[in-house]
Amino acid sequence: MTVSADSTVPVASTDLPQVERRASLPAGFRAGGLAAGIKASGRPDLAIAVTTAGPAAVAAVFTPNAFAAAPVRRSRANLAETSGDPRGGFGWAQAVISTSGSANAATGTPGDQDQADVGRRLAAAVGIPDAHVLHLSTGIIGTRLPLDRVAAGIDALVPALEASDAGLEAAAVALRTTDSVTKTATTTIELRGSDGRPAAVTVSGIAKGVGMIHPNMATMLAVVLTDASIQPGLLWSLLRPAAARTWNQLSVNGDTSTNDTVFVLASGASDAAEVEAGTSSAAALGRAIEAVARDLARQQAADGEGATILMTAVVRGARDDAEARAVARSIVSSSLVKAAAHGKDPNWGRIAGAAGNARLAPAAVLEAAGLDADVAAARAGSPVSLDPDRLHIAIAGYPVFDGTLGGPLPFDRGAARTAMNAAELRVELDLRLGDGTGEAFGCDLTEAYVLENSEYTT
Amino acid sequence: MTVSADSTVPVASTDLPQVERRASLPAGFRAGGLAAGIKASGRPDLAIAVTTAGPAAVAAVFTPNAFAAAPVRRSRANLAETSGDPRGGFGWAQAVISTSGSANAATGTPGDQDQADVGRRLAAAVGIPDAHVLHLSTGIIGTRLPLDRVAAGIDALVPALEASDAGLEAAAVALRTTDSVTKTATTTIELRGSDGRPAAVTVSGIAKGVGMIHPNMATMLAVVLTDASIQPGLLWSLLRPAAARTWNQLSVNGDTSTNDTVFVLASGASDAAEVEAGTSSAAALGRAIEAVARDLARQQAADGEGATILMTAVVRGARDDAEARAVARSIVSSSLVKAAAHGKDPNWGRIAGAAGNARLAPAAVLEAAGLDADVAAARAGSPVSLDPDRLHIAIAGYPVFDGTLGGPLPFDRGAARTAMNAAELRVELDLRLGDGTGEAFGCDLTEAYVLENSEYTT
Repeated sequence: MTVSADSTVPVASTDLPQVERRASLPAGFRAGGLAAGIKASGRPDLAIAVTTAGPAAVAAVFTPNAFAAAPVRRSRANLAETSGDPRGGFGWAQAVISTSGSANAATGTPGDQDQADVGRRLAAAVGIPDAHVLHLSTGIIGTRLPLDRVAAGIDALVPALEASDAGLEAAAVALRTTDSVTKTATTTIELRGSDGRPAAVTVSGIAKGVGMIHPNMATMLAVVLTDASIQPGLLWSLLRPAAARTWNQLSVNGDTSTNDTVFVLASGASDAAEVEAGTSSAAALGRAIEAVARDLARQQAADGEGATILMTAVVRGARDDAEARAVARSIVSSSLVKAAAHGKDPNWGRIAGAAGNARLAPAAVLEAAGLDADVAAARAGSPVSLDPDRLHIAIAGYPVFDGTLGGPLPFDRGAARTAMNAAELRVELDLRLGDGTGEAFGCDLTEAYVLENSEYTT
Repeated sequence: MTVSADSTVPVASTDLPQVERRASLPAGFRAGGLAAGIKASGRPDLAIAVTTAGPAAVAAVFTPNAFAAAPVRRSRANLAETSGDPRGGFGWAQAVISTSGSANAATGTPGDQDQADVGRRLAAAVGIPDAHVLHLSTGIIGTRLPLDRVAAGIDALVPALEASDAGLEAAAVALRTTDSVTKTATTTIELRGSDGRPAAVTVSGIAKGVGMIHPNMATMLAVVLTDASIQPGLLWSLLRPAAARTWNQLSVNGDTSTNDTVFVLASGASDAAEVEAGTSSAAALGRAIEAVARDLARQQAADGEGATILMTAVVRGARDDAEARAVARSIVSSSLVKAAAHGKDPNWGRIAGAAGNARLAPAAVLEAAGLDADVAAARAGSPVSLDPDRLHIAIAGYPVFDGTLGGPLPFDRGAARTAMNAAELRVELDLRLGDGTGEAFGCDLTEAYVLENSEYTT
């Protein structure tokens, strides 16, 4: 059973463009994937994308985990070098490489040297500086990369990269670990062209999700390519709030991997004029990136470990968007709510309880979403304003609780259970305290999750 | 298989007194329990304790959940009234009543009125002011208390309360919901007597844990009685850090109930002199309360929903104790670590990943643990300092990772798996960054947890 891209109305941004679930290679890139032998299964495990006409502007979001893996550290250092900005969130690059099967995390200095070797090999094969390579990887923690196989894979794949949708699709397939489906999302928008007339711009993303069996942690990787023309710093300012509203609202099991990485690369190869800060073009490109990010996040949630449904929490009426997102995230993260969702139990008590536990995101996330640094620092982790006497809760379209009417509402439990038996479960809250809206994406908690994760992994 | 109280060396406080797992009623109280018919099962569900010689000093810790249940709100209001302190954390009381089977949460104004009725009934039966009643309850969210049954139970139980260990044991039994065992812990210490000679003081706690099937949320309730003599505000200053180091480090599934409550009542009926702030007697009483709290928390973790083992994380070498506790808590809260524990998988990658995700507790918890309010506010939710190149991890006594030795260590997996197959799994980390220590208590994640919580509850 699949979940259609348009099955819910976007909340955080009211006018996101439509997304299609396919790979569509923007102008200015070549891409591909193959089986290099990193995975024991023999499935595709090496993905590469390169630019065809010089450096692309890059924006990135990395895991906040203190044990960031070697590819994360390498990418951040390369971006800092090419941009001159020490934060390492944006810069320039001409190639992206992803290895699946070995995370190259917790491998110490030898792991960093391995990742540098991978970069040198790819840079030599493509004919670009080492610093123009971006790195991703996912898989078992604590094992070294099989350098000889990666090198042979690079040498085989670089000449075979295609400037076609099939090339990007092949990269998406090679990005997978135990994902049950390949995850792609594409949107096309019109920006102002260099000649003043509308010019089509493609934004296409590929991702691997968090449906896993063997890896030690469920890593979230995504690469978004666009042929828009934009400076790296501005691209970063579009990516950060989009990621805060989408990927940061994705929860499968509450664990954040050592390897989580999102890259957006803009080749500038479309006919559109360079996107300038504060323009309608910048806003439109930001919405396109958010639309792709949101749809990939929904695919990742639906394909969570052992998951049988996508669970979305939609919150309105919070004091502000940050509080709405905190409540939504608390709901999809609650083990009790997730288990009730699995049991098709319209259990509003657990939802109210999870809402009551909501706390604002860490300062870095609040800042990425647009709060001033000092406000973000002051509000990080603080409780959310809630009033039980105003709260309204609906499960799968059934109003079940209304504080203004004394609390619990009578409803047809049998019908609600039937409505919950769908590919997507929607939980809606109205806090009736303000204009803040937000959503979050998760999945149910199943026996299969426990079985998959308690199996001896080595 | 049971876990003995002395199976680990206390970490956060190095010299906690020994605890026995039995109920021992301190002087100055009567207690009891019976089946009032609140639970459909017919099991004991009404617990009452009263003082025998005037008001006891009380300190309390309540759930931070925004949807605090009627008994929590009522207790807080009563404590604020008897102490004159609006925070409602300490005051005076002569009776405690607990009802199991109905949480009286999310029941609106009618639920508040019901709880007030319960208080009036008990106050009349005992002959004390309404404000001298403390309330606890646990069970299904959103259902009203069966007032007639509770009233009949009060009338039957009050005359039958016993000034005996058996009375407190009966109260502990009636506190249970689906706990698989009755949870009690007692310690006896010597404080300075009124005549200058040592005087014995008893500190005895009863608790219900989080082993649940039918209730909508797993509520943590505890009542600790002592015959020490102490003012309420000072008692609160002893309880708060003790709770921060013990109950706040307990995680079964990450959800915080609407009803979580801890009360400590001090009757003053021992021969000990009044405990004064800053004295060795205050320190000794604080350690006794912490020892009882810690052991009850361990019993609660071991009896978590579907749990088969107690998992403890012990962290040394953090920058300070707050950071050590954050790392320990992150480890026992990780679904991936919990599932690996269930599978007897010595998976240090998941432990390192969970440690890397650690964030400091909310401001209120940091403040309770002893940090200044402004420091607590500034540090709440912030990341913990970690250096992968210094980290040391041991699982069930097996060193598995040492950053100073390049990371992963060779070890006998078969032997480690065998060592993990015990009633308690101990995970130890040394961050090698400072002197901070902390511990946390949790359990494994099992298929039984999911089954219990996905069953249709009504």
